[in-house]
Amino acid sequence: MAVRRYIEDTWRRVSVRHGFVEVDGPTFEYLDLYKVKSGDAIVSELFHFESRADKHGHVDEFALRPEFTPTLARMVAAKANGLPKPIKWFSIPRCYRAERPQKGRLREFIQWNVDILGDATPAADADCLAVCIDALREFGLTEADIRVGWNHRELMTKGLINAFLAPDHVAQAYVILDKLYKLGDVDRHKLCDELGCSPAEKAGFDKLAAVRECELADTTARDAILESFGPESSGPIREFDRWMAQRGMGAFSNFDFGVVRGLAYYTGFVFEVFDRVGENRAVAGGGRYDKLIELFGGPAMPAIGFGMGDVVLEILLRERNKLPASLLPRPAVFVVNALESPAEAQTLLAALRSSTWNPERTAIVRPGLHALTSYKTTKNVGKLLQEASSSGARLAVLIAPDELARGVIKLKDLANRAEREVPLAHAVEEIHAALRV
Amino acid sequence: MAVRRYIEDTWRRVSVRHGFVEVDGPTFEYLDLYKVKSGDAIVSELFHFESRADKHGHVDEFALRPEFTPTLARMVAAKANGLPKPIKWFSIPRCYRAERPQKGRLREFIQWNVDILGDATPAADADCLAVCIDALREFGLTEADIRVGWNHRELMTKGLINAFLAPDHVAQAYVILDKLYKLGDVDRHKLCDELGCSPAEKAGFDKLAAVRECELADTTARDAILESFGPESSGPIREFDRWMAQRGMGAFSNFDFGVVRGLAYYTGFVFEVFDRVGENRAVAGGGRYDKLIELFGGPAMPAIGFGMGDVVLEILLRERNKLPASLLPRPAVFVVNALESPAEAQTLLAALRSSTWNPERTAIVRPGLHALTSYKTTKNVGKLLQEASSSGARLAVLIAPDELARGVIKLKDLANRAEREVPLAHAVEEIHAALRV
Repeated sequence: MAVRRYIEDTWRRVSVRHGFVEVDGPTFEYLDLYKVKSGDAIVSELFHFESRADKHGHVDEFALRPEFTPTLARMVAAKANGLPKPIKWFSIPRCYRAERPQKGRLREFIQWNVDILGDATPAADADCLAVCIDALREFGLTEADIRVGWNHRELMTKGLINAFLAPDHVAQAYVILDKLYKLGDVDRHKLCDELGCSPAEKAGFDKLAAVRECELADTTARDAILESFGPESSGPIREFDRWMAQRGMGAFSNFDFGVVRGLAYYTGFVFEVFDRVGENRAVAGGGRYDKLIELFGGPAMPAIGFGMGDVVLEILLRERNKLPASLLPRPAVFVVNALESPAEAQTLLAALRSSTWNPERTAIVRPGLHALTSYKTTKNVGKLLQEASSSGARLAVLIAPDELARGVIKLKDLANRAEREVPLAHAVEEIHAALRV
Repeated sequence: MAVRRYIEDTWRRVSVRHGFVEVDGPTFEYLDLYKVKSGDAIVSELFHFESRADKHGHVDEFALRPEFTPTLARMVAAKANGLPKPIKWFSIPRCYRAERPQKGRLREFIQWNVDILGDATPAADADCLAVCIDALREFGLTEADIRVGWNHRELMTKGLINAFLAPDHVAQAYVILDKLYKLGDVDRHKLCDELGCSPAEKAGFDKLAAVRECELADTTARDAILESFGPESSGPIREFDRWMAQRGMGAFSNFDFGVVRGLAYYTGFVFEVFDRVGENRAVAGGGRYDKLIELFGGPAMPAIGFGMGDVVLEILLRERNKLPASLLPRPAVFVVNALESPAEAQTLLAALRSSTWNPERTAIVRPGLHALTSYKTTKNVGKLLQEASSSGARLAVLIAPDELARGVIKLKDLANRAEREVPLAHAVEEIHAALRV
């Protein structure tokens, strides 16, 4: 849970600082909503159920959400005209898949969604990808750990036709591109033959296959191919590379011939984030889906977004040793009570934990402190101070008979072992002050 | 969503500062888990569904969780021996009820759960109740807005028997207590007759009914009844009152004859938080459930906990005007770009939003800033500064041709309108420094 909290908090913090607003929807929707985007075949992958019959015998079919995009599309379609553009939304929903759990794929998971709607420019594509990369950097991942491969449906199609592809072979080309780095030469040639490629097309795909973006120390081969794509294709591709470089993210992202993603869904820019060191797993992915809001009954509305799940990300962060050493919140104060009565300690603890409001009661001016005490029955101060130290608290507060008789308690800095006495009557103020330095 | 985030964050912050650790479980469990605690009747109140058949034709029955306690009991029962005591856990699960939505009750809601397990002392009861009260105070609610009524199954039973109740009439007594403040005198007398109460018992309940804790400016009548309960009952009751007073929470909580809660479930201390001004709605409730972990197959394990839902709480905070004026995160910087090219602005924005790591890359030493810019096409600096102001940002950063020619940009404090120029080369450092003061 501490790891999940860390992941969620990081996603949220990065989303907010890029100007995105958090949204969410219900955990389950009408089953039909998921058929709109994915067709009837999706049903077997969903946890779905029926409502009880109403008085007319009608039952509703519901499904636990497998993803957030249909909910987002429904929400935007319903309110499209009233929302200022661009709409910059993020969400961190729990999602569900009715499949056998395996490493990297669980039945229940959390997926970060980031979307910009109402802005059709490539600048929005770059802004969206930048959020994704900034989050991965925030987790401590570098360009040595991950890479972003991106592509663009329209620019790629234009380029291929300029370079070697027959215009009526576009659909076949994407079948080949989807397997570009997965098949060896022999299997790729076989696939090209099955799809009716000409010798020129086969040779063209051979060149593309020779470029593996994950090893792009040298871009000569790629640049030669882009040259053959013609300026109307290679121009915007190179410009997007410059934009990512301007955002300080050039080392993370490369144009990648082999990034295709869902053909029915994405309409232009697409990208995928890969684990560079390990099994080349996809950590995140997204792209432009300019037709979806219309499909859900809304107006024409350009849109770009991505999703990142917690399951693969957590595996990756563990493998790379990128999780912070301590994920649990660190206590501020540990109250050591050497008295027989718990009264003084409980009064002090409660006062330390309480927030202080301004006199108008409009705002908290001093938040309560994370304060602990021991549940052991011992009054052995040495043992209790040991427990205070191992709790990670910054400050120990000792309430003991001799000091109390003089109206004081002892504060002990658990880092430098420095001690001093303060009047019990001003203990709360003194402890807050000691923690501020 | 901003309200929900505020409620969740407040619950989490208060839980942590009282030394609780966050846990969670799956959104759905085996349907049978909910029958263990609540019997078969619970099924009609649940959203439940079946898995697909496995190869042997077996299907599992699942249910969306209506509450968190069965999951908690299952988790604790499984790991009881390995967990240090007391176990102090909180959770903020989404829960689901298959019922018609109405004001204060929705099909999907969030419920804060706080539990202390493995500590049978009344001090744990007081600690648990203190978390609940501290959270309500953190939302800005005072003893004028809410009150906590508490009771104790064993102490109450002992006291009633000492005062007026026949020992074999305990079950009947709790039926009457449950309706103590809901029925008028006539209906209560009727109920007493139906249950076979003696004249002395009827008179005893008359006295209890005359005490309404929600109007306890004067405790004389209550104290007289407690006196009649005898010291073995009234002693611990008065001691608990003193404990809450020691925690600075005496004004919130009172012993309440009419707080009964679920008889099958709770075993000792019980409490409920009521809206004092409005419709006397229950905002939160809980108590001791010392038998539950055993019921779920674990060892004998004392336990005390409570739940608080977001739905009634949000209604209450809105009615009392206790929600903060602004719940959306406040931006730090707004970049005003008066240049034709977006390049400089995008480079600066990306650098402002990026966190800085220490040289060893073990920790973030300077978190990225919440930074915005305009999506309008205008280069009118006045209009853009207006947008910067209304965004709530603390600082505007102006990138304009004349300044850029001299290698500088302008920082403008949007509160006091003070402006100064800083070199573009040191813009990020200067902006961070300006925001620190």
